Amino acid sequence: MAALLMAIYIKGFDTKETAALTDAMLYSGEVLDFKDKSVIDKHSTGGIGDKTSFIIAPIAAACGVKVPMIAGRGLGHTGGTVDKIESIKGFNTSLEMNDFKELLYKNGLVMIGQTKDIAPADKKIYALRDVTATIESIPLITASIMSKKLAEGTSGIVMDIKCGSGAFMKNIKDAKALAKSISNTALRFNKNIMTLITDMNQPLGFAIGNSLEIIESIETLKNNGPKDLTELCIQLAGGMIYLAGIAKTHNEGMKKAKEVLNNGLALKKFRELIISQGGDPKYIDDYSLFNVAFEKTEVLSPQNGYIKSIDGVKIGLQCVELGGGRKTTSDKIDFSVGFIIHTKLGEKIKKDSPLITIYHHKEQLELVQSIKKELLESIIKISNTVPKKINPLLIDIKTSWSK
Amino acid sequence: MAALLMAIYIKGFDTKETAALTDAMLYSGEVLDFKDKSVIDKHSTGGIGDKTSFIIAPIAAACGVKVPMIAGRGLGHTGGTVDKIESIKGFNTSLEMNDFKELLYKNGLVMIGQTKDIAPADKKIYALRDVTATIESIPLITASIMSKKLAEGTSGIVMDIKCGSGAFMKNIKDAKALAKSISNTALRFNKNIMTLITDMNQPLGFAIGNSLEIIESIETLKNNGPKDLTELCIQLAGGMIYLAGIAKTHNEGMKKAKEVLNNGLALKKFRELIISQGGDPKYIDDYSLFNVAFEKTEVLSPQNGYIKSIDGVKIGLQCVELGGGRKTTSDKIDFSVGFIIHTKLGEKIKKDSPLITIYHHKEQLELVQSIKKELLESIIKISNTVPKKINPLLIDIKTSWSK
Repeated sequence: MAALLMAIYIKGFDTKETAALTDAMLYSGEVLDFKDKSVIDKHSTGGIGDKTSFIIAPIAAACGVKVPMIAGRGLGHTGGTVDKIESIKGFNTSLEMNDFKELLYKNGLVMIGQTKDIAPADKKIYALRDVTATIESIPLITASIMSKKLAEGTSGIVMDIKCGSGAFMKNIKDAKALAKSISNTALRFNKNIMTLITDMNQPLGFAIGNSLEIIESIETLKNNGPKDLTELCIQLAGGMIYLAGIAKTHNEGMKKAKEVLNNGLALKKFRELIISQGGDPKYIDDYSLFNVAFEKTEVLSPQNGYIKSIDGVKIGLQCVELGGGRKTTSDKIDFSVGFIIHTKLGEKIKKDSPLITIYHHKEQLELVQSIKKELLESIIKISNTVPKKINPLLIDIKTSWSK
Repeated sequence: MAALLMAIYIKGFDTKETAALTDAMLYSGEVLDFKDKSVIDKHSTGGIGDKTSFIIAPIAAACGVKVPMIAGRGLGHTGGTVDKIESIKGFNTSLEMNDFKELLYKNGLVMIGQTKDIAPADKKIYALRDVTATIESIPLITASIMSKKLAEGTSGIVMDIKCGSGAFMKNIKDAKALAKSISNTALRFNKNIMTLITDMNQPLGFAIGNSLEIIESIETLKNNGPKDLTELCIQLAGGMIYLAGIAKTHNEGMKKAKEVLNNGLALKKFRELIISQGGDPKYIDDYSLFNVAFEKTEVLSPQNGYIKSIDGVKIGLQCVELGGGRKTTSDKIDFSVGFIIHTKLGEKIKKDSPLITIYHHKEQLELVQSIKKELLESIIKISNTVPKKINPLLIDIKTSWSK
């Protein structure tokens, strides 16, 4: 397998070969099939501050989509959906398959962690890719993602392909190649697929860290969220509504998504999700219940200027240093730590105005000093002139229908 | 390691990288160093009917070269030097390192099988190359050969690179690339190196099979050997004498080689080799002592014509079928079976004249019928016209001296 991975890494795999590999990985475990057009999932290739799942699953479910979300834990610079939602006390992400199916049809959404039953080959192969330096391969990424997503038994998938400095795909060419590879593979398995290439040259929203991100997600469900996060969630949820056949166009899907954000039905669905999986719904109304670090250190801008770049990967790594992520799979997560960024790329900033707030513990003061230094020296860059070009959030959308 | 092998197989390795791999494999075990200019070995990349070691080691030793030969066993279509010499009763190829060194200086030649002490990584890596389909890689072949040969502590190596249908390198371009890779690696380890690219579009000499090949070797040492085998042995032994500094040119080395073939000194050395390693020297004078299969089946030419091709690999495989080789490393060798070919490429042949004789056992009659069919249908091809081009035995010679 190690030799095969290296051969694929160097020589590539065509659509047929990628589908064959996906197939082999998919059938290494249980394969669900709801045979239901309204069962749709979303997947993201991973970015910094990406908490869209908590927002779009309730939005889509509120519009009649059934969302069977099987999500991952964090490792390295990216956080994990499952870790984040567990910052709500009691939330159980380890459901039996029967309960998983039952909740999907009862509430229209369910959110669990990866199980040993779904594509177990992927976990082993991923570990092998890690040690053989074959992670960055479009066919291997495709097979890894799709073997898990196809096993969920949906009729369609909305795929958010992150592109930029904070993402796996650093440029649009690679992102488009991955989008095409994923679409081709989905079609071979008779799944409808929408790929969105979205910008990841800065963290999504403002919050980074487990509790902080869930709070921001709830705020977004209350329609008070950051502009970029809200916009992306409407795009993605609109796509899910469209693929489910509940809207005739993506635009109509987005319109429906906005409605349920405005009228509170999405938030209501989120509440149902929490209650049905054993979580405490009071967290939605009282953020003080969240485990958030008491100490806050504000990092101020050293100069007047414009935000030129924000290195999301490095912020993610600093969040791991604080305890908010994992260096190895056995590490425990500290839900309370993280960052709130106060600016976006291209924004004008004044000397001594807050750039970013670090949420940490008292005993981490030395670490915070080194993070502060790192933030000012290499993570957030400020220029004296207006930055030439800020990428749009949405770079490309393609929808493919299986026959 | 599997991933690395595949990466090397696809991407190649430059001289420096090949030397680094060789170095790592070499120092996985014991590394001898005789610090003696007259210690020279020969290696062949493997061909059908290749029994040169038994002839050139005594020739070179008779001229004052010290030859510390660590040879392999047969697997698949090629026979092994160590298997062949064991057809002389009592010959011990499993000497302790101390005895090995002592005999080298006492007799000027010693011949043993591969030990666990010499480049143990090579055996493991070779097994991995086998299952990862990465055998046919010039840097990997180079590192495999050289890690073993460099460990023998010689000051120089004569490398016989077989080229043609019966060899690993099918064409001159590949053979030259391997020769260059081997020379470059040898020079990096301060070894003098002579590479000879020699034709392997037909078996060397006439005999194939363990006992039969040793008898042919003794005949060659008695100066009654096949023309091609004798010529190649003089070239190779001449090269060893030259590299040892005993002759000023390769030609002078070859002259000395011919002398000791003519005056019986080479044969005398072979007798010393056998006696000193526990073998019965009477075999040299009485071939009836050899275990040779009693049954002989002659295959006759079905037509008048010219020998167009002789597929050595397929003959080797048929020899394995008879029991003369190994399909797996645990198989036992039958020394008695084999083939005597009666013609060479391009030779005129008359209908019903003998093409090849099969040496086999009574109970193998059915197998012999199928071998006969195979020989006439796909191994020996006869044309009505004179073949256009027969490759010369010697295609290329290059000598490189380390500084």
